[in-house]
Amino acid sequence: MKAARFYEVGKPLKIENVDIPRISDSEVLVRVRSCGICHTDLHFIDEGLIKPGKVPQIMGHEAAGDVVEVGERVKDVKVGDRVLIHFYFSCGECYYCRRGRESLCVSPEFQHFGFTTDGGYAEYAKAPARSIIKLPSQLPYDAGILVDAGSTAYHAVREIGKVRLGDFVVIIGSGGVGLCTLQMAKLSGATVMAVDISSDKLDAAKSLGADHVANPTVDNLYEEVRRLTDGRGADVIFELVGLSETMGRAVDILAKGGRLVFIGYSKDDLTINPRRLVTGELQIVGSRASSRYETVEVVNLVRDGRFKLDPLITHRVSLDEVNEGLDLVRRGESIRVVVRP
Amino acid sequence: MKAARFYEVGKPLKIENVDIPRISDSEVLVRVRSCGICHTDLHFIDEGLIKPGKVPQIMGHEAAGDVVEVGERVKDVKVGDRVLIHFYFSCGECYYCRRGRESLCVSPEFQHFGFTTDGGYAEYAKAPARSIIKLPSQLPYDAGILVDAGSTAYHAVREIGKVRLGDFVVIIGSGGVGLCTLQMAKLSGATVMAVDISSDKLDAAKSLGADHVANPTVDNLYEEVRRLTDGRGADVIFELVGLSETMGRAVDILAKGGRLVFIGYSKDDLTINPRRLVTGELQIVGSRASSRYETVEVVNLVRDGRFKLDPLITHRVSLDEVNEGLDLVRRGESIRVVVRP
Amino acid sequence: MKAARFYEVGKPLKIENVDIPRISDSEVLVRVRSCGICHTDLHFIDEGLIKPGKVPQIMGHEAAGDVVEVGERVKDVKVGDRVLIHFYFSCGECYYCRRGRESLCVSPEFQHFGFTTDGGYAEYAKAPARSIIKLPSQLPYDAGILVDAGSTAYHAVREIGKVRLGDFVVIIGSGGVGLCTLQMAKLSGATVMAVDISSDKLDAAKSLGADHVANPTVDNLYEEVRRLTDGRGADVIFELVGLSETMGRAVDILAKGGRLVFIGYSKDDLTINPRRLVTGELQIVGSRASSRYETVEVVNLVRDGRFKLDPLITHRVSLDEVNEGLDLVRRGESIRVVVRP
Amino acid sequence: MKAARFYEVGKPLKIENVDIPRISDSEVLVRVRSCGICHTDLHFIDEGLIKPGKVPQIMGHEAAGDVVEVGERVKDVKVGDRVLIHFYFSCGECYYCRRGRESLCVSPEFQHFGFTTDGGYAEYAKAPARSIIKLPSQLPYDAGILVDAGSTAYHAVREIGKVRLGDFVVIIGSGGVGLCTLQMAKLSGATVMAVDISSDKLDAAKSLGADHVANPTVDNLYEEVRRLTDGRGADVIFELVGLSETMGRAVDILAKGGRLVFIGYSKDDLTINPRRLVTGELQIVGSRASSRYETVEVVNLVRDGRFKLDPLITHRVSLDEVNEGLDLVRRGESIRVVVRP
Repeated sequence: MKAARFYEVGKPLKIENVDIPRISDSEVLVRVRSCGICHTDLHFIDEGLIKPGKVPQIMGHEAAGDVVEVGERVKDVKVGDRVLIHFYFSCGECYYCRRGRESLCVSPEFQHFGFTTDGGYAEYAKAPARSIIKLPSQLPYDAGILVDAGSTAYHAVREIGKVRLGDFVVIIGSGGVGLCTLQMAKLSGATVMAVDISSDKLDAAKSLGADHVANPTVDNLYEEVRRLTDGRGADVIFELVGLSETMGRAVDILAKGGRLVFIGYSKDDLTINPRRLVTGELQIVGSRASSRYETVEVVNLVRDGRFKLDPLITHRVSLDEVNEGLDLVRRGESIRVVVRP
Repeated sequence: MKAARFYEVGKPLKIENVDIPRISDSEVLVRVRSCGICHTDLHFIDEGLIKPGKVPQIMGHEAAGDVVEVGERVKDVKVGDRVLIHFYFSCGECYYCRRGRESLCVSPEFQHFGFTTDGGYAEYAKAPARSIIKLPSQLPYDAGILVDAGSTAYHAVREIGKVRLGDFVVIIGSGGVGLCTLQMAKLSGATVMAVDISSDKLDAAKSLGADHVANPTVDNLYEEVRRLTDGRGADVIFELVGLSETMGRAVDILAKGGRLVFIGYSKDDLTINPRRLVTGELQIVGSRASSRYETVEVVNLVRDGRFKLDPLITHRVSLDEVNEGLDLVRRGESIRVVVRP
Repeated sequence: MKAARFYEVGKPLKIENVDIPRISDSEVLVRVRSCGICHTDLHFIDEGLIKPGKVPQIMGHEAAGDVVEVGERVKDVKVGDRVLIHFYFSCGECYYCRRGRESLCVSPEFQHFGFTTDGGYAEYAKAPARSIIKLPSQLPYDAGILVDAGSTAYHAVREIGKVRLGDFVVIIGSGGVGLCTLQMAKLSGATVMAVDISSDKLDAAKSLGADHVANPTVDNLYEEVRRLTDGRGADVIFELVGLSETMGRAVDILAKGGRLVFIGYSKDDLTINPRRLVTGELQIVGSRASSRYETVEVVNLVRDGRFKLDPLITHRVSLDEVNEGLDLVRRGESIRVVVRP
Repeated sequence: MKAARFYEVGKPLKIENVDIPRISDSEVLVRVRSCGICHTDLHFIDEGLIKPGKVPQIMGHEAAGDVVEVGERVKDVKVGDRVLIHFYFSCGECYYCRRGRESLCVSPEFQHFGFTTDGGYAEYAKAPARSIIKLPSQLPYDAGILVDAGSTAYHAVREIGKVRLGDFVVIIGSGGVGLCTLQMAKLSGATVMAVDISSDKLDAAKSLGADHVANPTVDNLYEEVRRLTDGRGADVIFELVGLSETMGRAVDILAKGGRLVFIGYSKDDLTINPRRLVTGELQIVGSRASSRYETVEVVNLVRDGRFKLDPLITHRVSLDEVNEGLDLVRRGESIRVVVRP
């Protein structure tokens, strides 16, 4: 089969012919139809922030397709099912999994689809049956992006950010995950300000329901947020950029008792005097991906027409064009690019 | 009356004769019998980290005594009552007070007893009736230390740290507030490790119920905590030292999903890569003092013999000796020193 | 001034001339412009379920108007302000008020506007300044209904029902408070089924965003809910009818781990075997009115165009017609009737 | 092997010779060394409140012993391990299991050890490897009672009752689970009143740390609780008796905002007017058994000397004497009886 494999930091993925994966008795084989390109791929390919489990490594972790083979012990998935692959292959038995926090799985057998084990930039991919999610007939294969972009936003907003009706929420960074976070926060009843330096992305944010948008190179974010919140500041902030200055600004605009949620992989460090945490009872927390069951719930939101998938997908490329797709992400010219193997 | 007043950063307090405070119709006047010396006083006197509301300023914020006069509109306090003065004079009407988070009061009329308004290192002090707490007959005046040391620990453990039965808790810094935090965490059902560089303080921690103690200059904290928690790390850590190295170490020993709570005023900054917050879903939060109602609950714990007050008070000095008392705190030779005006 | 006063259970209110109330130094006098009629009035007038604080008693507890006089010590309200009167005159100092749960106030001075003290079916009404809420210029006086119908729904959905994005919510009873609850649940991200025996009310529910509606005399509620939730049942149910059969049905359609929230005053008892609570870990809870700060937040939702006030008000009557207004409510022919004194 | 089997409601268990169970590749076989007799057995044997999965049925669900055989796919358990059998054989994959709420498992394959599948009143018993818990060497086999009595109490206090430092807790019914609940509530920092009509059980409660005890046939429970709580009532009540009068009394002594937790299987119904729930914002909830991971935590509490196991076990009988053991429970003369097969 054809696949796009990572060999070395800073080099393009190689499009190669490799063997179709062989499944164990608890796994399924999927003919991949769509696989989203996520900004995290660049942290891996360009920066080496995340280490591959092996080299060469097929990348891609937002995959959807058709089941073409199932292991002997697999019960709830069958050949012909249209499915998503949840990209955290959690064990189901460790301290965290038994408590329902699958993205914190500490099993030595834990695998990270597309990072530590072969992923979805390929014609075929295998996954444990327990990481498979049925795709309702109303949803296109491009719903593959829900397993990361959509579900990461859902988990961050609902479980970690605990956004509630009436909250004032700021989202710093309006790319793919940012616009998903925006939608989830709006659905949860928040008033939302989207922040970005790209006016295209701010336009996208507006069309997806942002109540306010701001470009920090032009607008005085601090003044704006204070004005809109009776001087109080934001109840919850999602930080998806990870640069010193955006992080510092985030702390400045947080209300007393407010919560700053990090999503994704920052390059820069955050430096803060704990006195600020104390005097404002601020909370700084991280949110990591999602549990499989959260992706199920996100799929339902799309099925019910409440979460909008289409506007997020701005480009589609073939498997041969995966490096061009990565370039689009690199240049910030897309929201979500999907690869169609 | 005699009072100890702050004039200038780096200078001793001056013992002077000043007028007895005049009360408004909603205030009460208290003949101060005991006032604890808190480490925060040094951040004020030595470092200027906290700014006085006025100069000169009578310091001291852990005061107890007898009510000698009450304003016309005061209903629930009367002359002769033995009382504590809760040191956060919150307004009761602002955004945070109406939600029960009095220590975040944002009223322009908010006062901080002993910091922005005259405090308890004096023969008399005044306070709003709504900040007064009755002292049961079983408790000595030295229970004044409960309004800060005791209640700050209670709030940090119960409301912010959310310590629960079965948690593994580490307390970094075993001074006055640290030993109160230890007691509160033990009462909440945690297994507790107390950390300090002073063996005297670790001995005190042991006698107050610490399950484990560690001296980071001798012990490998990281190994110890991993060993005691099946490799998982601490569920909740209270950091009361505020030095770069103790803060960094705290992050290292936190379990996935764990919570690092800052109490008190650090000098150093915390530097952390948000990636660590994300991959471990760590939470870093600040805890600020307490609401008056929490002090009421702490008083009940002492009354019922569950929280031990006596071992915390290692020295008693007269008002004339307040600078000697501050020196004891400076040199780390005491747990709690109280001034007896 | 003209006022409508209650004398006896089962008798109409009498329209009479009475003295304009005199205010204390912490109260304000309001020229009432609008006062909603609430179904709870009937529990009082027709059934005697709630006892008057005195007889005769001016009723009406959803009042808005203009401030015409303020007490000497009142700071944040001034003559000419357009205001709402929060109808729970909580003390601000008791166990519950200090914890931010004002509707549970246990002060002997607690008053219930329009029930234990004179209310808003009058040309003038007085209230403590701390129960006053500013009415933004965009909102009409009929926003008076927000202090009960709107805020009670907000509190029930957000604080007690803890409705979250993705929840399946059922609202049993689609009158005034029910339709407010529907809106709040939709704003919080729930999928909502509205239940009523009146097709007019179900139509109103649909137009306000209900995803599903059901008439229990026609539809098989149990089957419907199971079908829509993959067999699981409702996550949160709000019960506003209070009849044996609606309550029993509510328990039947609750998911394991689900929450049944009672709002308002039921006549019938609920009978349940605790075994059902145990095997399903069901929660049955009550929600009482709201704190003043929650009404402020509801006012903001209306100001921002997120909560719809207009469709709720179906009838407007003069003060002389208050008994006709009450009849409309009695016959279930209205959503909300407001009195314009 | 020898086993005690249920045939018919109202009849004694029959001691018989039956085949040793055969295990599947994911199960383990245990030589049972101890199995606690639980009051729930009587609801099954005497009242038929719980239905057997098959007849005849080996009963007993609090089992501990030695692993003598393991299935081929079992990884973390080996022959010779001393173990407990968690009695809820949850699936690990359903809606509730994936969220960490194993006792609500809705899989058709869910089994209830000793109720729907053969249990521990036998020389051998089999169980899925994922329901097995290692028994530390310090703990005796009689720790089998922890899987129900201990863990049910832990789950009820920590997860459902959410008992916190400073709460006033009442436990109605001081048998085996009641005394475990008492210990868990004490460990969580509550002030606890134990209630029972047996003075022996109240003595046991006192020796296990009850702050107050009351016999409702002698003491005025209402007055006592109000007196001890400044008139407020109990924050959390655990009801383990399930009679109309104890349940009604429980509602009477609950504080506003308080929580009444049902554990176990009541015969009587609870009748309550929802108005009481509303005016007091009361919460009535059920607590069901526990997840396996909670039993692990309870085992750690015993290992660390914090939860006392010994005083709970008042009688030990052989397998042949199981009906005599059940009689002891029937007559209320024991705390916990264990069978030693």
